[in-house]
Amino acid sequence: MLIRNATYYDGRNIVKGDLRNGDSDEEFDAMGKFAFPAFNNGHTHLAMTLMRGAGDGEKLQEWLDNTIFPTERRLTPELVYRGSMLGLVEMIRTGTSNFLDMYYFVEETAKAVEKSGLRATLGTPITSFGTPYYKDAQDALRIAERQLKSMKPGRVGYCVAPHSIYLNDEETLYRAKELADKYNVWLTLHISETRKECVDCHEKTGMWPVEYLDSIGLLAENTVLIHAAWLTKMEIRRIADREASVIHCPVSNMKLASGGVMPLHELLDAGVTVGLGTDGASSNNSLDMREEMKIGSLLQKSHRWDATAANARTMLRMATLGSNDLAFISLDDVRMLPHHDLISNLVYSGGNVTDLIVDDRIIMKGGEILAFDEEQVKRDFLDASAELLK
Amino acid sequence: MLIRNATYYDGRNIVKGDLRNGDSDEEFDAMGKFAFPAFNNGHTHLAMTLMRGAGDGEKLQEWLDNTIFPTERRLTPELVYRGSMLGLVEMIRTGTSNFLDMYYFVEETAKAVEKSGLRATLGTPITSFGTPYYKDAQDALRIAERQLKSMKPGRVGYCVAPHSIYLNDEETLYRAKELADKYNVWLTLHISETRKECVDCHEKTGMWPVEYLDSIGLLAENTVLIHAAWLTKMEIRRIADREASVIHCPVSNMKLASGGVMPLHELLDAGVTVGLGTDGASSNNSLDMREEMKIGSLLQKSHRWDATAANARTMLRMATLGSNDLAFISLDDVRMLPHHDLISNLVYSGGNVTDLIVDDRIIMKGGEILAFDEEQVKRDFLDASAELLK
Repeated sequence: MLIRNATYYDGRNIVKGDLRNGDSDEEFDAMGKFAFPAFNNGHTHLAMTLMRGAGDGEKLQEWLDNTIFPTERRLTPELVYRGSMLGLVEMIRTGTSNFLDMYYFVEETAKAVEKSGLRATLGTPITSFGTPYYKDAQDALRIAERQLKSMKPGRVGYCVAPHSIYLNDEETLYRAKELADKYNVWLTLHISETRKECVDCHEKTGMWPVEYLDSIGLLAENTVLIHAAWLTKMEIRRIADREASVIHCPVSNMKLASGGVMPLHELLDAGVTVGLGTDGASSNNSLDMREEMKIGSLLQKSHRWDATAANARTMLRMATLGSNDLAFISLDDVRMLPHHDLISNLVYSGGNVTDLIVDDRIIMKGGEILAFDEEQVKRDFLDASAELLK
Repeated sequence: MLIRNATYYDGRNIVKGDLRNGDSDEEFDAMGKFAFPAFNNGHTHLAMTLMRGAGDGEKLQEWLDNTIFPTERRLTPELVYRGSMLGLVEMIRTGTSNFLDMYYFVEETAKAVEKSGLRATLGTPITSFGTPYYKDAQDALRIAERQLKSMKPGRVGYCVAPHSIYLNDEETLYRAKELADKYNVWLTLHISETRKECVDCHEKTGMWPVEYLDSIGLLAENTVLIHAAWLTKMEIRRIADREASVIHCPVSNMKLASGGVMPLHELLDAGVTVGLGTDGASSNNSLDMREEMKIGSLLQKSHRWDATAANARTMLRMATLGSNDLAFISLDDVRMLPHHDLISNLVYSGGNVTDLIVDDRIIMKGGEILAFDEEQVKRDFLDASAELLK
């Protein structure tokens, strides 16, 4: 597609002119709009939009025990589809074109992503014990392999997503890794989110979580570590040496009061690739990467007593890793004014995303979603969320 | 005004039905919308929208020395008017109806507020030394008194705003207090924002900043303390005993890396009235109270390792102190879905404000500002900000 009259960020500077994105000959007039790489949300549980706000303000364990787990037991494929569609509306409206997701009935999320025109890499959360979605770890791995076998080149892919080291035994983790390597896909898992997790791991294995992961061969180039809020310097070196990636979820860490502040600059200085994720809408409570950039930056500045930490360009880079797509905000949006520093405006002030182009196709134009009927999605979603929390 | 078919928060519960706001017989159909008290922004430097994004990422002192101070020297009444008008657009679009402001050429901000239909209490920053806006402290106090004398009952009032204890000598602070008492208005000042300020004060006076304020009679019912991020327990008791109020500016404190985390729950437990403020658009970089609520809550939860800290209702109360006005968000906004907990959605997820009713008058309806020509304001503002930073 040829983007005419664009004001865009080329990764270094703000440039004005025409911009090519994708192969088609279609033209898109971007006059008066600021184009930036669409966001890549590194960690979500998309269909958890269904539970947004439910049990809010409870302590983490009570919230999980009283609200999330009992509710999740009642999930059906249809409910997950509807929850995913609503999450996609929110992503489109906040400028996200791609995400890495971990949730149940993930084939339903895949259907929703196909319909939306966005991109995603999806994984079934694997645990060593049975859940309402599978009998046991073997069954979970079988489901994951079925997904991997079904993959076709395109916008939607799968990954292998063992939930965490505390919900998986070594055997399951090891088999998950084999699966990821066999199909050459990402292996993603929650790690070092809370201090308790780290201490428990150390008591059990004599090693810190990332050190333990490495000892069983799970730290590699295709590993995507989620949270990594509590890390030792030794673990940072290991992550860098193994060329694993990390996804930082600052809002979720703060909202769930996990205590640790991810050592962002130590990771970046070590050369680690760090992305940004919102986590699920139940623990954020939004899927808005603009907000995630601002809050991620503020958390580092505040924690380090350093106003130059985690600057706007660093946050934008983290929020748009590998992005090939384009999102647009009106240059006339009150929150984008004045135009002294458009990147700073985008990260700290925001503005409404008006257009989104994904994979050479216009998904949203002038605030209207073209890819599907948004109103119908919302009606179906409200029915679904009411039924689920009934 | 009679608000028909409203879904609204009465301070305890979500209620559906008709709602009276103001005395007029006009009717407003709120079908499908969530009505909540419009925000009261407790600390702003409104016209600093002109500098939003300029010098972003610099250290505090360099940013002030290289960007803010040289720029402020070139301010004119007309530039302040235009900057204020843009700030008012942002406030309207994010649901704020009232604010407490401290800036130069504040009569221009008053004109802008009158035009916008919003409410405000405004004060000229008073310092002991001369500025481009006045010769010396005496001149500043004279300007402040001229403003106070000009006050008429209505939406716009004035206050007395000595900048801080570090930019004012005791004599000036004392005379500012006399002026506030004489006209029965607020006295507002920045206090205990950085650790340096506290240590400097203690070295000079043997007292911590709030303790010092109290010792010279400046801590009283009409005192509004801004920031108060670094407080001792003794100072919290003093604030409570004197019935002074505090405005918390979490985003500004985090962005400028002032280090201290305001002891919110200690202040609330002591019975202190605590409001919320964005600070200027140059140090935030927005005037969005929805974001301020979310980030304020996250900061407390994260800092205290307590997911139940600073819950949604507490934050909404702080953000809407004394509000008589109404803001509306569509119940169908993707970020307000589902409807398990509308207050939690408002605080943590947000949504676009569609309507604003202030003082019995519709300022914005269905996303359109009725009170003035928004496009003209933006054009004038862009000219002004370009001229200022030239």
